[in-house]
Amino acid sequence: MSLDGVKALTFDVFGTVVDWRGSIAREAEAALAPKGYALDWAAFADAWRGRYQPAMQRIRSGERPFVKLDVLHRENLEEVLPDFGVSGLSDAELDHLNRAWHRLSPWPDSVEGIGRLKGKYIVATQSNGNVALMVNMAKHAGLPWDVILGAEVCQAYKPMPEAYLRAADLLGLAPEECMMTAAHNDDLKAAAKCGFRTAFVARPTEKGPDQTKDLEADPSIDVAAGSFIELADKLGCP
Amino acid sequence: MSLDGVKALTFDVFGTVVDWRGSIAREAEAALAPKGYALDWAAFADAWRGRYQPAMQRIRSGERPFVKLDVLHRENLEEVLPDFGVSGLSDAELDHLNRAWHRLSPWPDSVEGIGRLKGKYIVATQSNGNVALMVNMAKHAGLPWDVILGAEVCQAYKPMPEAYLRAADLLGLAPEECMMTAAHNDDLKAAAKCGFRTAFVARPTEKGPDQTKDLEADPSIDVAAGSFIELADKLGCP
Repeated sequence: MSLDGVKALTFDVFGTVVDWRGSIAREAEAALAPKGYALDWAAFADAWRGRYQPAMQRIRSGERPFVKLDVLHRENLEEVLPDFGVSGLSDAELDHLNRAWHRLSPWPDSVEGIGRLKGKYIVATQSNGNVALMVNMAKHAGLPWDVILGAEVCQAYKPMPEAYLRAADLLGLAPEECMMTAAHNDDLKAAAKCGFRTAFVARPTEKGPDQTKDLEADPSIDVAAGSFIELADKLGCP
Repeated sequence: MSLDGVKALTFDVFGTVVDWRGSIAREAEAALAPKGYALDWAAFADAWRGRYQPAMQRIRSGERPFVKLDVLHRENLEEVLPDFGVSGLSDAELDHLNRAWHRLSPWPDSVEGIGRLKGKYIVATQSNGNVALMVNMAKHAGLPWDVILGAEVCQAYKPMPEAYLRAADLLGLAPEECMMTAAHNDDLKAAAKCGFRTAFVARPTEKGPDQTKDLEADPSIDVAAGSFIELADKLGCP
């Protein structure tokens, strides 16, 4: 499939651009270890993240009106803390921990690779994260986005078709002029159904050392790479 | 008034960051002179821009549902061309000329000054221009925005209060943590009514050599400067 007409890359962020699991484990330890807690920090990150899809599903299904991800993260945090025996945090402490999602660290190739891709393409977030989360993360991590799109701007959580189609419309582009870029085959296949081109970037330890899903690209994907630097090479971005 | 709590600068763009009048005159000449037209190019720019506020007013008043500025610009272009005796342009030629607004040139201090301000603050567009227009302009001009906000994302044209308040909400900030930055006192006063801090940057020839309005800041404005470089100096941004 020709990729000549692609003008914008739209990026999944959690797991694809940033290491949510390692970062949340680090931030939880920084917040809770001084209070005497000694959790399995990676398990805590997994448990918090585990409530992410079910919380969005209530919105996708129409059971609940759209709310931004900061709100869902906070609700999920307050549900998961008791499971780990943590209690008594102040509202300010809860807010700081919740904003750990604004302080996620990029994978080692993300800043350089996306910077190279930016020389040829519009680089846009297409994340379920809200605008403030994405802006603060970009400032913190040095991610050079041209534009912050995604769930809050589109008022739809991926993989709803509206999430992709509204992003293309906001960019003034046809879907086939946009390439969804993600470490997750389901996200890419949903974008492809809307007419997007697709790029897979492998993150085989996103979910920990025992990850079994998304180890490689589905055969339907247009381009596959092991990092954003390799993707930049493959797309001719010096 | 203390500005210590300011975390984001939100920028008016047309006239404040970019020179729409000189750029539109240049782009119109580039498009139409090869076809044998010899207009007063600055007068053409003024006439096209002259239809901008009335077109938005129909949306502000509720007479018409929200449409993006690219659509209003195109309608206004097709209305103004006959007044200058121009006819017979193809749809592709009209589209290219309409996208002159995506190719506006920055004032000489804009890229450097906003780059310096970005080191301390979130720098966000807060323009009536639509997302694609702002993204393409930023790529063309090298403007280093952290995030593209404004009319299309907020679904409200300035000076409607919703335009400012939704921008602050998207940034996850209180209005008083945002500073509206513009060459237009009316824009700044409308933002201030919503709780924003305000910065005036003088553009005394935005509307041509005979400009009489907005030559200096209203006394109610928090900070006034002659350029973004001076504003960066005044706000302590090295």
